[in-house]
Amino acid sequence: MRYLVSHPQVQLGTCLANQQAGEEIAHVYPSLLGRVTGQFEKANYGVLGKEHDVVFLCLPHGQSQGPVEELISTGCKVVDLGADFRFADAEAYRKTYGESHQCPELLGKAVYGMPEMNRASIASAQLIANPGCYPTASLLALLPLIKTQGLDSTVIVDAKSGVSGAGRSAKISSLYCEVNESIKAYGVGEHRHGPEIEQFARQPVLFTPHLIPMTRGILATVYIQKDPEELKALYTEFYSEEPFVSVLDSGLPSTRSVAGTNRCHLAVCPAHHSGYTIVVSAIDNLGKGAAGTAVHNLNLLFQLPEETGLESLALAP
Amino acid sequence: MRYLVSHPQVQLGTCLANQQAGEEIAHVYPSLLGRVTGQFEKANYGVLGKEHDVVFLCLPHGQSQGPVEELISTGCKVVDLGADFRFADAEAYRKTYGESHQCPELLGKAVYGMPEMNRASIASAQLIANPGCYPTASLLALLPLIKTQGLDSTVIVDAKSGVSGAGRSAKISSLYCEVNESIKAYGVGEHRHGPEIEQFARQPVLFTPHLIPMTRGILATVYIQKDPEELKALYTEFYSEEPFVSVLDSGLPSTRSVAGTNRCHLAVCPAHHSGYTIVVSAIDNLGKGAAGTAVHNLNLLFQLPEETGLESLALAP
Amino acid sequence: MRYLVSHPQVQLGTCLANQQAGEEIAHVYPSLLGRVTGQFEKANYGVLGKEHDVVFLCLPHGQSQGPVEELISTGCKVVDLGADFRFADAEAYRKTYGESHQCPELLGKAVYGMPEMNRASIASAQLIANPGCYPTASLLALLPLIKTQGLDSTVIVDAKSGVSGAGRSAKISSLYCEVNESIKAYGVGEHRHGPEIEQFARQPVLFTPHLIPMTRGILATVYIQKDPEELKALYTEFYSEEPFVSVLDSGLPSTRSVAGTNRCHLAVCPAHHSGYTIVVSAIDNLGKGAAGTAVHNLNLLFQLPEETGLESLALAP
Amino acid sequence: MRYLVSHPQVQLGTCLANQQAGEEIAHVYPSLLGRVTGQFEKANYGVLGKEHDVVFLCLPHGQSQGPVEELISTGCKVVDLGADFRFADAEAYRKTYGESHQCPELLGKAVYGMPEMNRASIASAQLIANPGCYPTASLLALLPLIKTQGLDSTVIVDAKSGVSGAGRSAKISSLYCEVNESIKAYGVGEHRHGPEIEQFARQPVLFTPHLIPMTRGILATVYIQKDPEELKALYTEFYSEEPFVSVLDSGLPSTRSVAGTNRCHLAVCPAHHSGYTIVVSAIDNLGKGAAGTAVHNLNLLFQLPEETGLESLALAP
Repeated sequence: MRYLVSHPQVQLGTCLANQQAGEEIAHVYPSLLGRVTGQFEKANYGVLGKEHDVVFLCLPHGQSQGPVEELISTGCKVVDLGADFRFADAEAYRKTYGESHQCPELLGKAVYGMPEMNRASIASAQLIANPGCYPTASLLALLPLIKTQGLDSTVIVDAKSGVSGAGRSAKISSLYCEVNESIKAYGVGEHRHGPEIEQFARQPVLFTPHLIPMTRGILATVYIQKDPEELKALYTEFYSEEPFVSVLDSGLPSTRSVAGTNRCHLAVCPAHHSGYTIVVSAIDNLGKGAAGTAVHNLNLLFQLPEETGLESLALAP
Repeated sequence: MRYLVSHPQVQLGTCLANQQAGEEIAHVYPSLLGRVTGQFEKANYGVLGKEHDVVFLCLPHGQSQGPVEELISTGCKVVDLGADFRFADAEAYRKTYGESHQCPELLGKAVYGMPEMNRASIASAQLIANPGCYPTASLLALLPLIKTQGLDSTVIVDAKSGVSGAGRSAKISSLYCEVNESIKAYGVGEHRHGPEIEQFARQPVLFTPHLIPMTRGILATVYIQKDPEELKALYTEFYSEEPFVSVLDSGLPSTRSVAGTNRCHLAVCPAHHSGYTIVVSAIDNLGKGAAGTAVHNLNLLFQLPEETGLESLALAP
Repeated sequence: MRYLVSHPQVQLGTCLANQQAGEEIAHVYPSLLGRVTGQFEKANYGVLGKEHDVVFLCLPHGQSQGPVEELISTGCKVVDLGADFRFADAEAYRKTYGESHQCPELLGKAVYGMPEMNRASIASAQLIANPGCYPTASLLALLPLIKTQGLDSTVIVDAKSGVSGAGRSAKISSLYCEVNESIKAYGVGEHRHGPEIEQFARQPVLFTPHLIPMTRGILATVYIQKDPEELKALYTEFYSEEPFVSVLDSGLPSTRSVAGTNRCHLAVCPAHHSGYTIVVSAIDNLGKGAAGTAVHNLNLLFQLPEETGLESLALAP
Repeated sequence: MRYLVSHPQVQLGTCLANQQAGEEIAHVYPSLLGRVTGQFEKANYGVLGKEHDVVFLCLPHGQSQGPVEELISTGCKVVDLGADFRFADAEAYRKTYGESHQCPELLGKAVYGMPEMNRASIASAQLIANPGCYPTASLLALLPLIKTQGLDSTVIVDAKSGVSGAGRSAKISSLYCEVNESIKAYGVGEHRHGPEIEQFARQPVLFTPHLIPMTRGILATVYIQKDPEELKALYTEFYSEEPFVSVLDSGLPSTRSVAGTNRCHLAVCPAHHSGYTIVVSAIDNLGKGAAGTAVHNLNLLFQLPEETGLESLALAP
């Protein structure tokens, strides 16, 4: 909503909520005070789709499939920020999420909404599967290779995320006192974003997520068996025209330099031993890793300049 | 710089720095990567004033006086974010900062740059003394009283600030490990923002600042011997047309709802005992408490709509 | 449990839990790995009281009354860390907690377990009402006055607490992302610890709690209309023999210097205006403000040296 | 000092400091108030060595060599927490630290002070080279393999540290506002702890350190091309008698469960793809990663029970 409120070509329509339906939006989110009026409403997707040009869905996995079917049938465009349409293959979805897909016929219509990967097909799609936060950070660190020579060995992605990645539900594991002054790995060897990355990497990916004591941001440290000099040149060239991805000339990225924005900072570094490259990728998991890319996809869907509404800079230098 | 880069009526001119002169701006502040090019430069105020319509100064106390004299003589407008021109009276300055003022004749020209207090005189001024961060939070919690019936007894201001208020110099007391997981009071009974507040309160103000483990934000809790019902009505009316100050209908303000913005959230609450009102005021010390108000003053100085370039919302709800 | 495991005169008995009954203690609290074996058990207070010399209760308000009745009848000693026995007067309890007290006849048996206030009567009691965390910090800043000349005007207590004060239940307001990088006041004019403080202050107390982004610690800033010189001498003398309370010669207390300990650091400071004293008090809300004092009371109840098991120092300097 | 003050067999002798010589110890470190009296003193190593049984040195790299020579000649034992005696080979030291070693003849006398690796030789040594914090976390995750079958391929160590690892000097990069709400990698491919680990791993180690927003703790995530089932059994057996290292049956380690202690928690996990094991290792960089191991070495040097003075548990569960 923060992005949409500031987007000059967007008129904010109905704001949906489940548990908070009926509450004043600005009471639930006081940062919107004076900018957004009205209440959250319960969803009626059949009606909604007719009244809006595009609907953003932010639902837990398994819950977007019905709504997407309804919305798509009205002709409305959909950007789904959930996981349900990220796999091209229904079987891959079932293996990863443990449930059969309810509308596998729509998987072929969905475009994986990473603009740097699929710019042209996004522009002509009706249904966008917005990428996961970890896959965004990880794939941007691999994309120049994937799109050119391909990967030829196992890749290690050691990723660190702020707590907002866990959503806003009341869980003990997300309590301040559980997270503060600590770091842990979680979902080692079994996190669902591993297969999402592998779908595009086409090589084994050892993906290990960690929870660190901050609100926003993901840093992915990616270990690749390739020559660093060659990769630095390749990455710099590949991203030279991208509006939101920067390969740093020198220095290493920090998440705080991209927090609150739709930007990604990358560094391509030689490891201590020859033959390995370490690519470090920093994004805001809620920005470039979710809502920012959703707005980027909106701009592509409606042929707007790509940076529209996405100009904000990080608060921290 | 973050505000100015996004301001549609501003063309960013020379960026000054002392120790970092000669360095690439986007290297020092990677969040500006792709938006700002060029290097920091050493100041030559005589030349600068001729080439720019307005100069913002962000210097330690005692160091703005010479530059302001030079700049003013060129006809340029100046917004001084430092402390040197905040007191109308040179003697008050000397008592508070321990040094004589070098250009007391300019004090009369300076307007205290709090728009809610001095909107009209700011618009016609050449020299603006941007308020201190603590005085902004504190005075906004007192202004409706000051401007109407006045205060008639000692006021207690218990204020809590994030660490960015201490600036970016390398001091042990600002190290992560000194500040994290701790709170302390400091400057009890002797902080320089006490007299700055009293200059307008015209009553004794017991001002106690505290350092808390966060980057941005000030919360001031202000204890006033007045009837809370009456004050709530007064404050709500007083601020009803102000673009950046909201008196909350219900609930209590959090600094995170205004972080990164030029906004102030106020709550006017009854105390446990009759006859006392507790006003709670939340701002971003670097936004409404410094750079945001400086841009607000810029808009007033150049007759621009007051909210121009100040629309950003807090990242956190 | 951390304190008890390290106490040389204590043998840890049954560990009770409600929701986590049946789980391995060291699985729930991995910090106890290798030091505590066994599982949490459901409570049977009648049996428990016969098998143990002392039972510590840590229950939500309103839930200790039945267990205390059962335990007391077995002859066992009880340290209740909850709120149910902190008021000497059943009517004060009802007004503050909104429910009638179920065993008002036991209120007279209960001793308010602040050793600095009630050392002798604690030693001979069977039932100890361990003080609240905010009242501990606040009353230690007032006790020398209360015990000698008394207070003669309204006192303002502006208190700031880490998040552990809210307990470990899964509430949205205690989530990392809600608390981090923010400060807010809460319960203004209506927090239940206000009347608990007033019970001993015998003057109106304006008590305002704030939530700050840290795990442990309370800092109370207390405004008193008294001469600071006189108070500094009084406080220094009053606490000169206390093992756990220090009046600082110079400097101001930080919560991190007492975190994890049973200590309180106090500073007695002149305000900016004559006639006011500002006392700043720092404790660990879970240490001196809860478990530490409970162990201190245990030592008094069993005539052990008062510092036994309470020697630990803060991790942070 | 915190550990030594609580150690029942230690009498704290002279406390050295450079910049803070002459200051009251308890004024510099208020957490020691009431437990430590006296002032910091300037070092005279020739005298010191005669008056003390053991001296702990905590000096920047390159600065321990002279003091160690002087101390050793007096017959005193030395635990050097700095880097100067960690390499057995003077040339490896020179390559890593960029300076020639001044007393290479002492390198043969020094024992690398990791008790789990060198228990027996520590007990009979005069000079202990206490391991670096990152090497402690990393080597404990590799030691069972190193000591048995050896490593046979490149190992990746992705390590994350709290800020206290950077020491207490006033650097901009350690300021609260630079570190808070951010993560970054640093020293990629060139950190000096890489060669320290490789000295024992005898295989290439890709070591990447990261700075995360917390005070204490290191988590090392170690990627090994070995069968996870086999490694889990090996590690569990190898550490079964170690007093300070636990291989978790289930779950994953958090740094907060070992913060403030001399303990290490390890998990041995299968990766998403067969043939890889991920070992996660959590320590307190200032505890097991520095002062805790120094005290452990003291216990070994003087034939005291190994856990003496090291019983403290983490504050957080």
